[in-house]
Amino acid sequence: MIYEVIANIDDMSSEVYSYLFERVIKEGALDIYIENIYMKKNRSASKVCILCEEQDKEKFIDILILETSTFGVRYQKYNRTILKRKFTKIDTKYGSVSIKLGYYKGELIKATCEYDECKLIANKEGIPLIKVFNDINCIINQKIGVKLLT
Amino acid sequence: MIYEVIANIDDMSSEVYSYLFERVIKEGALDIYIENIYMKKNRSASKVCILCEEQDKEKFIDILILETSTFGVRYQKYNRTILKRKFTKIDTKYGSVSIKLGYYKGELIKATCEYDECKLIANKEGIPLIKVFNDINCIINQKIGVKLLT
Amino acid sequence: MIYEVIANIDDMSSEVYSYLFERVIKEGALDIYIENIYMKKNRSASKVCILCEEQDKEKFIDILILETSTFGVRYQKYNRTILKRKFTKIDTKYGSVSIKLGYYKGELIKATCEYDECKLIANKEGIPLIKVFNDINCIINQKIGVKLLT
Amino acid sequence: MIYEVIANIDDMSSEVYSYLFERVIKEGALDIYIENIYMKKNRSASKVCILCEEQDKEKFIDILILETSTFGVRYQKYNRTILKRKFTKIDTKYGSVSIKLGYYKGELIKATCEYDECKLIANKEGIPLIKVFNDINCIINQKIGVKLLT
Amino acid sequence: MIYEVIANIDDMSSEVYSYLFERVIKEGALDIYIENIYMKKNRSASKVCILCEEQDKEKFIDILILETSTFGVRYQKYNRTILKRKFTKIDTKYGSVSIKLGYYKGELIKATCEYDECKLIANKEGIPLIKVFNDINCIINQKIGVKLLT
Amino acid sequence: MIYEVIANIDDMSSEVYSYLFERVIKEGALDIYIENIYMKKNRSASKVCILCEEQDKEKFIDILILETSTFGVRYQKYNRTILKRKFTKIDTKYGSVSIKLGYYKGELIKATCEYDECKLIANKEGIPLIKVFNDINCIINQKIGVKLLT
Repeated sequence: MIYEVIANIDDMSSEVYSYLFERVIKEGALDIYIENIYMKKNRSASKVCILCEEQDKEKFIDILILETSTFGVRYQKYNRTILKRKFTKIDTKYGSVSIKLGYYKGELIKATCEYDECKLIANKEGIPLIKVFNDINCIINQKIGVKLLT
Repeated sequence: MIYEVIANIDDMSSEVYSYLFERVIKEGALDIYIENIYMKKNRSASKVCILCEEQDKEKFIDILILETSTFGVRYQKYNRTILKRKFTKIDTKYGSVSIKLGYYKGELIKATCEYDECKLIANKEGIPLIKVFNDINCIINQKIGVKLLT
Repeated sequence: MIYEVIANIDDMSSEVYSYLFERVIKEGALDIYIENIYMKKNRSASKVCILCEEQDKEKFIDILILETSTFGVRYQKYNRTILKRKFTKIDTKYGSVSIKLGYYKGELIKATCEYDECKLIANKEGIPLIKVFNDINCIINQKIGVKLLT
Repeated sequence: MIYEVIANIDDMSSEVYSYLFERVIKEGALDIYIENIYMKKNRSASKVCILCEEQDKEKFIDILILETSTFGVRYQKYNRTILKRKFTKIDTKYGSVSIKLGYYKGELIKATCEYDECKLIANKEGIPLIKVFNDINCIINQKIGVKLLT
Repeated sequence: MIYEVIANIDDMSSEVYSYLFERVIKEGALDIYIENIYMKKNRSASKVCILCEEQDKEKFIDILILETSTFGVRYQKYNRTILKRKFTKIDTKYGSVSIKLGYYKGELIKATCEYDECKLIANKEGIPLIKVFNDINCIINQKIGVKLLT
Repeated sequence: MIYEVIANIDDMSSEVYSYLFERVIKEGALDIYIENIYMKKNRSASKVCILCEEQDKEKFIDILILETSTFGVRYQKYNRTILKRKFTKIDTKYGSVSIKLGYYKGELIKATCEYDECKLIANKEGIPLIKVFNDINCIINQKIGVKLLT
């Protein structure tokens, strides 16, 4: 059971979102994202949504109210189905890289590399990030036997 | 009572959506749609939403998890108010055409033609689809007494 | 406790939204907004959302069904946390201006001027609206002691 | 030959757009519209675009710079192909209604009713605007021989 | 040198876009896409853009004018830099698959599989499309020596 | 005279954009932004736009082609009208803060504080960023005589 806390915002500089995203992630939100909406009086506005655990709900209500221009927030519960996650390391031509494994109904069905490590590799090696992603995903594909539930 | 099953996706080629839309509709979803969202680290992402009957909820959770890159989905219940639908045929200068009728609180309040039949007519007759829509809607307007509840 | 009443609309001229927005606000909705969505068959569509009090829910279901092309609406409950609002007047170089005050957990934390009055001032004085907003917000900032809860 | 004058805006309240749209239309712009864009630092922003005649270009550059927070605008030329427009009146069960006719390569290919008149009718008669549009478009369809160039 | 032909559309059912996309692609456009825009009077609208070769410009102006509700289109020239494309076949565990190769400044820098063939494989094998993409891209990665220009 | 270099991208993980934005800004682009577009086969895609000086055009064409999945880019010239910028310091209750001044037709018409300094202040003082923006903008409003050209 998770919560989504939402505010529609149309009277604030977007410069605030950069700061808000960083703060909300640091405070332990599961996710934060913006949807563009169109409100009355031709206002192009932003619907800010924070996904969080139930025990953090009050904290993120406070943050949205204090850090943005909104006069109110709304929120509701969601059910969730998530993969069980494990973390491991894999050897690649770029060195050891962290891998996130996802298990569903007892089977390993997904494996992905971590963005921040790939970014460091791209910067260090001077090659495009998409090349790094592609190379590492192929090694994962060969070394880790991802099963399919179909 | 219907369910909405949702995944935020930021690490997958959009080529998958064409396949996903077809499969989800074929499996009996009430609807599938995408909202563009904006996530942390400047990622322009997609929120994929499937509307379905309660008994199909588990099936669409499985499909979203297996057919996309997501590590989790969230879902929740919605109430619904829908028009009672009936289907009939109507004679037009393009031949017989299927019409969907919508009844609300006992009164016929809406009638529309089917997209796929109009598309066939536009292709066969070599005329713009908007012309076909307009012609058929006018015949509906004359022949079917759509009442208004106001 | 508030309600959100929603319809996905892909077969209607957008000209209707101007009329719908005006009517829905006049009938007492808390808010109305549109999100752009992408539906099957390459249809760029609109998700229309009305936020309203519980006792108005049936009225806005009726309005969405009668005033748009939709064959059904969905809706659900939200919890809300809102600032307590008070209204006052403040003297500015443009004359007396209405101010909305927002109290959270007993403290005054926000104060804003009203859009429509600022617009009148901008028109009358022949100066940009952003200049009017800025001037009045600075007077508010000096005269009203907005406390912070952090 | 027309001009499009553009500003990317990320540090301004959206309340200004209502005022800006009204002013720009009153000053004779061909059109004004907003596209949502995503800028660096997770800023959800607005790209404001004004379409205008060549001789009005300087005026709209001034307005965008003075009425918004932007520090610069960009602009460029477009070619245009437009229908020749004529205006006429048509008798309907709601009284006489203004019609816009569109001619392309010498042929009448389009005819539409005016939004503001239909809105007045919807308000006066107490019926949905989509019903008024539909009724009047059917009368146009019967009375005016719109030809097709296909 | 290519052309982009554009129309802003706010008074048409989105059902037309499916038909329009198919027709425009069949007629040889380089691409067609929609951007959501927000116009005056709270109209959420669509900016339809067709990219085409110079010699096809008049054809697509005609199609946009005849197949949509617009009273005018605008267009302009773009310069282009494109990869030189070659097509080849590659052996995979799913059989022979078509590959598109992209050369830039004389070097092979990109290679991708074709969506429609991957979709057929996913349907035939009963496995997720993302699995097919991933498998084939890894085989490409191993067999084809994609060079990098950095 | 500036250039806009553009690519439509529908077959790449959005994780790449974070890296691309950082790299493009570091290489001296005037701006980079994303628009959401909707392409054939129900693909929700991204139009990536880089604004740059004429002499940097080739560099950013290379970066877009090498760092993304695109097989081609398009680009065109824009004229620009920009404010003349000067930078100064101003004393505030938070210490000395950098201010950007904007001159148009010889007059000072805009003055804004720098996002990154305000963010540092918000973090150090433990107060909301919108409070810092508001306080500093009011001091600017009092101390700097911004003239209006209207």
